[in-house]
Amino acid sequence: LFHVDWDLVQAEKEGYDHFMLKEIHEQPRAFRNTMTGRIDEKGKKVIFEGLSLTSEQLMQIDKIFIVACGTAYHAGLVGKYVIEDLARIPVEVDVASEFRYRRPIVTEKTLVIVVSQSGETADTLAALREARRLGAKVLAITNVVGSSIARDADDVIATMAGPEIAVASTKAYTSQLVAFYLLGIYLAQVRETIEEGERISLIEALEKLPEQAEEVLSYSENIRTFADSIKDHKSLFYIGRGIDYAVALEGSLKLKEISYIHSEAYPAGELKHGTLALIEENIPVIALATQDELYEKMISNIKEVTARGAHVLGIALAGDTELHKSTDEVISVPSTVSLFTPALSVIPLQLLSYYTSLALGNDVDKPRNLAKSVTVE
Amino acid sequence: LFHVDWDLVQAEKEGYDHFMLKEIHEQPRAFRNTMTGRIDEKGKKVIFEGLSLTSEQLMQIDKIFIVACGTAYHAGLVGKYVIEDLARIPVEVDVASEFRYRRPIVTEKTLVIVVSQSGETADTLAALREARRLGAKVLAITNVVGSSIARDADDVIATMAGPEIAVASTKAYTSQLVAFYLLGIYLAQVRETIEEGERISLIEALEKLPEQAEEVLSYSENIRTFADSIKDHKSLFYIGRGIDYAVALEGSLKLKEISYIHSEAYPAGELKHGTLALIEENIPVIALATQDELYEKMISNIKEVTARGAHVLGIALAGDTELHKSTDEVISVPSTVSLFTPALSVIPLQLLSYYTSLALGNDVDKPRNLAKSVTVE
Repeated sequence: LFHVDWDLVQAEKEGYDHFMLKEIHEQPRAFRNTMTGRIDEKGKKVIFEGLSLTSEQLMQIDKIFIVACGTAYHAGLVGKYVIEDLARIPVEVDVASEFRYRRPIVTEKTLVIVVSQSGETADTLAALREARRLGAKVLAITNVVGSSIARDADDVIATMAGPEIAVASTKAYTSQLVAFYLLGIYLAQVRETIEEGERISLIEALEKLPEQAEEVLSYSENIRTFADSIKDHKSLFYIGRGIDYAVALEGSLKLKEISYIHSEAYPAGELKHGTLALIEENIPVIALATQDELYEKMISNIKEVTARGAHVLGIALAGDTELHKSTDEVISVPSTVSLFTPALSVIPLQLLSYYTSLALGNDVDKPRNLAKSVTVE
Repeated sequence: LFHVDWDLVQAEKEGYDHFMLKEIHEQPRAFRNTMTGRIDEKGKKVIFEGLSLTSEQLMQIDKIFIVACGTAYHAGLVGKYVIEDLARIPVEVDVASEFRYRRPIVTEKTLVIVVSQSGETADTLAALREARRLGAKVLAITNVVGSSIARDADDVIATMAGPEIAVASTKAYTSQLVAFYLLGIYLAQVRETIEEGERISLIEALEKLPEQAEEVLSYSENIRTFADSIKDHKSLFYIGRGIDYAVALEGSLKLKEISYIHSEAYPAGELKHGTLALIEENIPVIALATQDELYEKMISNIKEVTARGAHVLGIALAGDTELHKSTDEVISVPSTVSLFTPALSVIPLQLLSYYTSLALGNDVDKPRNLAKSVTVE
C-alpha cells in the first residue's frame, strides 16, 4: 500500500508533476551511482567488491537462469544478450511464476540471477529459494539492500537508483540494465572471453551513458506530440529485432500500465506469421531500429506495416538518415555500442507512456489495479 | 500464392463450409497417421525408422534449440516442456528470424530442431543452414517431405497431417505436437531417463488422443455461443500457466489471424505486473486450467480478472467441478497426461477462432495480409 503525507509528497516531487517524470529524469544520476566504485581508476576493469562467488566458481558456470517478473523480467531479456555476447555462457530468462513450477534443469554449475526492484516480489523470492534448494548459486540484482531477496541470495549487486515511488518502473529498470552491463563485462573479464582492448572500449561507452541519457531527456517535445496522436487508439504495436525487441516489450508494458491502451510487442520478423492481419489504416506502430546488423531487415518489416497504412514512430540512432523515409516520425538517441542502446532507447518510450497517460487524464503514478511491489503470489 | 479451381475447391471441402473447419475435424485422423508405424506392436517403444542420428549421438546431446516461426514456434514451446520433462535435456525455443542473427551458442553437442508445416518458411530454412554451419545436427519436423527444409536437414520427422489449405494452421500444429510427444518419449527411451512402466503409460495415453479429439469436436455448440459474445470486442486476453500458457499463445494467435481482434496471451502469474490495468468490465478472458499442479494458483489468477468484471471462458479437464464457480462458461476436454493436454485443449480455441471469424463475416480461409507459407524473409 501507498500511504504518504501529501505535503511530503509534493516536496519529494522536487518540482515535477509526477514521481514518474521525476524518476525518468533521475536516470543519468542512477546510472552514475550504479557504476560508482565498480570500475577501476584507469577505466580498465570492472570490480565487484565483496562478491562471495570466486573467480573459480565463475569459471565453472555452464548455464545462467535470469528469473524475474514484469519490468525486471524485461531487464533480464537484455541481460541475456549481454552475457551471452560478452561471456558466451548460455542464458535462459524465465518469468518467476513459471520458473518455480517448471522442474527447471538446475545443477551446481548453474548460476541463477534474480532481479527485483523492491527485493520483495513474492514469486521471485520463491524462485530464489527453489533455485537454492536445487543447488544453484543465486545472485540478486535489487534496489533494496535490506530486502528479503537480498538477504536470501548468495550475492547481491545493488542498483543505486534511489527510492522509486511511481508504480511504473523507469530508473530501476535502466539501473538493472547498467548492472547487467557491468556484470557482463565482469564475467567476460574473469573468463577471458574478450580482449582487454574491447573491454576498455566497453567501459568507456558505459561511462558515457549518463550524459547521453541527459541528451535524450532534453528533446521530449516531439514525443509529447506523438502521445497526443495515439491517446484515443484502442490498440497499437511495438516492434523490434534482437535486443530492440526486448526494449519493445518494456515500452509496450509501460504504455499498458498507465495508459490502459492495449499495446503488444512483437519480434518484427514474426509479423508476417499472424499479427500483420491486425495492421490497418492509422494504427500506431512504434518501431525500434537501433541495431546495425538488423537494420535492413527492420526497414523491410517497417515497410510491411506502412504498406497497410500504419502510423509509425521510429526510434533510431543519431546520424540515421534513412529511417524517416519509411516512418512518420523519428526520434534519435545517441550512438553507443549496440548492447547498450536499450538504456537510451527506452527513455523516449517511457516519456511516450507518461505523456499518453497524462493526455488521458489517468493517475500516472498510481494506475488502476496495480501495486508497486507484488508481495503476494 | 493461392490459386485453385473453384469447383475443385468445393469438392475438396467435403461438405464443410471452409477448409479450416474441415482441417480442424481432420485432427483425429492426423494424430493417428502421425503415430502410425512409430510405436511398436506391443505398445512399449517408440520407433523412428531411418533416423540417421545414432543412439550414441543422441546420448551426447547437451542442448536442444527448437527454431520455428508463428504457429510452429508455439508447437516448439510445448516441445520444450515435453523434452525437458521426459528426457531432461535443456531446450531453448527461438523464433527463426531472431535465432539466425543472435550469434547463438551452438556446439557439436547441440541438436537443432526446426519446425515448419510447409518446409519452405524462409527464416526457418536460413536458421537451419546457420545451425549446420555452426556444427549442429538438424532434425526437421515438417508436413512436406519433399520440401527445402526436409532436404537440407540431417533427419526428418514427417507429420502426416495431409495437405493444409487454410492459412490459419490447425491440424499441422497438433500433428507437430504429436511428433514432439513421440520424440520426447523416444529421447527418454534412448537416454533411459524414464522407467519402462512410465513409458508404456505415456504411449497408452498417446494412442487415446485421436478418440479423445473426436470427443472434443462433438461439443462445439457452446463455443459458438461464446464466439458470438466476443465478436464485437476490440481486445481480449488468453491466460494460462506452464504448458497451458503455450496453448494460450496459440489460441490467441489463431484468433488474431482470422478475426482481426487484438488478443494477447499472458502467463497468468504476470498479470499483476502490468496487464491487470487493462482488465475492465466485460472484457473477455479465456483461461486455461488443465494442469493439476498449477490449478490452485490458476484459480486465484482467474479471480483477479473476474474481480474486475472480466467475462471468463474456462478450459478445464473433464471431472472439474470447481472452475465453473469462478468463470462464466467452462469447456471441458478429456483427461490425459498433463504434457498431452495441449493437443486437446487447443481444439476449442481453434473452433472459437473459427466461429468468431465466421460471425464477423471475414474470409476465414484467406485472412487479409497473410500468406499460407512465408517464403520471403
